Amino acid sequence: MTTDAKPSSRDRLLEAAATLTYAEGVGIGVEALCKAAGVSKRSMYQLFESKDELLAASLERRAAAAGRLLPEEDDARSPRERILHVFERLESQSVAPEFLGCPYLAVQIELKNPEHPASQVARRIKQGMTEFFRKEAERGGAGDPELLARQLVLLFDGASARAGIRADSLAGLIAPTVATLLDAAGMA
Amino acid sequence: MTTDAKPSSRDRLLEAAATLTYAEGVGIGVEALCKAAGVSKRSMYQLFESKDELLAASLERRAAAAGRLLPEEDDARSPRERILHVFERLESQSVAPEFLGCPYLAVQIELKNPEHPASQVARRIKQGMTEFFRKEAERGGAGDPELLARQLVLLFDGASARAGIRADSLAGLIAPTVATLLDAAGMA
Repeated sequence: MTTDAKPSSRDRLLEAAATLTYAEGVGIGVEALCKAAGVSKRSMYQLFESKDELLAASLERRAAAAGRLLPEEDDARSPRERILHVFERLESQSVAPEFLGCPYLAVQIELKNPEHPASQVARRIKQGMTEFFRKEAERGGAGDPELLARQLVLLFDGASARAGIRADSLAGLIAPTVATLLDAAGMA
Repeated sequence: MTTDAKPSSRDRLLEAAATLTYAEGVGIGVEALCKAAGVSKRSMYQLFESKDELLAASLERRAAAAGRLLPEEDDARSPRERILHVFERLESQSVAPEFLGCPYLAVQIELKNPEHPASQVARRIKQGMTEFFRKEAERGGAGDPELLARQLVLLFDGASARAGIRADSLAGLIAPTVATLLDAAGMA
């Protein structure tokens, strides 16, 4: 349990799966994953039942480890500021050259199968975001918190997808759009 | 040039590429495409330089042939109604079991390469949609037609993606969201 321990085979596989799937898509082969992780195929199949399971687990870990988009619970800010924070983070992440949009949306679009284990993990992670928006909308006095939450995650997915494919940049776009929806929902 | 002519090898390849790529992703193999089209690999490579080129051409044809989302030019309706029409069409298409979201967005997300010939075609097709929104916004007196057009195509991509992965349905969601943005832009 020392912090300078070398990453385990399992960790290296999870990291390689998260990184390579994001950069190249879910079609990435087991050979390439094992090579990048420096782990034999035999070891991989001892650790994970299948590539599908490895992919699902890598998304779980990514969600736990990655630079979080959601603010800390109970910071001092208003619900409106806490919602805007998510989109400010997205906007600043989106300018990185390696940004390819939301990894959880991409995996679901690529797999084209809501029942795939990795689609299920991705859907659950994004439901956490919707739930965050819903709670903040409720606390902020939105007229219809459920609708506002659905609108905000729809904006999030549209914005991250369009920035990820370089169809648009989010500057001067996402912040005013979110503000318009918050205003219309009656959130101060 | 008779209308009951059997589809050519070229047409069958374009059709198979559009259908199979949409259903299974850009990773679909040349073998599978040729098999579905009933065309030999040799013939395919006589007609198209590469699978990339076939994919790009299939998107062009899909855009020309598919059930159009945009209204006819110069129908009698107002710009606001013409914009809402696009989202009504999207909402009604999205309930079909085979709906997997916007094919042009999916291809770009899957290819992860804006320079790929098919990404370029897809981007151009979607730019046509942005341009439609911009023109209607201008005609309708929107305060900032450019911004409104970017917002609308962002909504379109978010909505079609979320409906395509079955994360949400568009009922009671997309129409009020579009209306809020049109209202905020000052479009009667």
